[in-house]
Amino acid sequence: MEGRIKKFILELQKKPRLRKESGLYVIDGPKMAGELDPQDVDSVYVTKEFLSSPKHAECEKLLRQLPYTIVQESEMKQMSDTVTPQGILVTARQKKIRGIRTILEHAGEPLLLILETIQDPGNLGTILRTAEAAGITGVIMNRETVDVYSPKVVRSTMGALLRVPFLCVEDLEKTAENLAQGEYTDGKKVSLYAAHLDGAVDYASVDYRKASAVMIGNEAHGLSEGLADRADSRILIPMCGRTESLNAAVAASVIGFEAARQRRMDISQK
Amino acid sequence: MEGRIKKFILELQKKPRLRKESGLYVIDGPKMAGELDPQDVDSVYVTKEFLSSPKHAECEKLLRQLPYTIVQESEMKQMSDTVTPQGILVTARQKKIRGIRTILEHAGEPLLLILETIQDPGNLGTILRTAEAAGITGVIMNRETVDVYSPKVVRSTMGALLRVPFLCVEDLEKTAENLAQGEYTDGKKVSLYAAHLDGAVDYASVDYRKASAVMIGNEAHGLSEGLADRADSRILIPMCGRTESLNAAVAASVIGFEAARQRRMDISQK
Repeated sequence: MEGRIKKFILELQKKPRLRKESGLYVIDGPKMAGELDPQDVDSVYVTKEFLSSPKHAECEKLLRQLPYTIVQESEMKQMSDTVTPQGILVTARQKKIRGIRTILEHAGEPLLLILETIQDPGNLGTILRTAEAAGITGVIMNRETVDVYSPKVVRSTMGALLRVPFLCVEDLEKTAENLAQGEYTDGKKVSLYAAHLDGAVDYASVDYRKASAVMIGNEAHGLSEGLADRADSRILIPMCGRTESLNAAVAASVIGFEAARQRRMDISQK
Repeated sequence: MEGRIKKFILELQKKPRLRKESGLYVIDGPKMAGELDPQDVDSVYVTKEFLSSPKHAECEKLLRQLPYTIVQESEMKQMSDTVTPQGILVTARQKKIRGIRTILEHAGEPLLLILETIQDPGNLGTILRTAEAAGITGVIMNRETVDVYSPKVVRSTMGALLRVPFLCVEDLEKTAENLAQGEYTDGKKVSLYAAHLDGAVDYASVDYRKASAVMIGNEAHGLSEGLADRADSRILIPMCGRTESLNAAVAASVIGFEAARQRRMDISQK
């Protein structure tokens, strides 16, 4: 196998800029590879050992439909970002969601998550994974948020990356303002809630059954004032003990599942 | 500074067995060091740069009360588990909680978290941090759970390690059985809830205001059947989409804060 391909794939995992320029990213492992739409696949690399292992069943369809390159296990180790590569590595095309309207179409009462400058890849991945489980309509983030196609994010989404609609926007404040004014929802206003340590409103006392968006800020600094100012209210997760804050993914999960609980209970009462 | 001390401190961070034998562990950084009871401190290492930086204020009291060793920045780098050490490193004595009765004393209606074989240090740390915030009475884990004094766990607890009562036990099944029978609570039974993907009960429909314990299992395999069988019910966090499971720390957080919500709302209605 050519050295320049190996180098390209390794750099694709290390350099956000190369991912941006090429529109590609790397998926490592059969499970997530098996969920890819063949149309989104750029190229597939597998080891002989993988092809003869039972694990290959998880992406059998992909391997039947598309050509693939067989590489040595030693080459796979050089190409992969992980210490123990799983035997299949795919370069895939990044999804292009055209705009918020695409996410909000047919959403009924949307429930959005707005992320500002989340920096830890594990946090972002966990948030996407949890967002899918909580029934979040879509995740909107600013460009200062860690690249969603970085290998650590991809891995920690556990496949949700391919299923949860998400979007990076240039101006989160403007987007929030537009949401609040019903710009994307035929005039129906979306209530904005800013998770904030100075929040005066108990997050659990808010009604998330109507169109809502929950805003979560950076791990160290929280939400910027400019964005928090756009919110209808600043909500707080009341904390016992002397904890100063919650992990950003935990905060998003707790609020997301409270919203899911309200929406579920509401349906069950009808 | 002596090479053998440097080596000891580095190994203390790497080897669970050495931590167990010595009863010591390492705290890196002024914030958590500043929260230590001086009685629990074994030795303190600081750099000159740290002493003259404003950060030292966070542990000023400790530095006034106890002797410390000044080390070179290069030595600190060799001793620390992190890439960018914060300038103060403390070897501290592990807390010895004598038993579950100590945790349950004066607890009213206790709310316990039982962890089985959690393997990821970040997960365990986040669970302890969240447990404090959610008002959990105490965390009980088996010996197969990752060592709570490993540097990554210590760091990700954000100080909660020093504040949340926790205990490792030999036989989690026996402990669960005893809890259920009110063995530690003057005959008052503790309801056991097993977070389980096959759960038939919505986690949000359970009443956590009475004495309860929530059991969370291993990241990959969940709870063992033996332990899950001890539960009054197997509870499930209903999930949308095609998510197969939640991150263990997220699951613990979602259930823990639902319990906190119920307990808070209950009080506010009185």
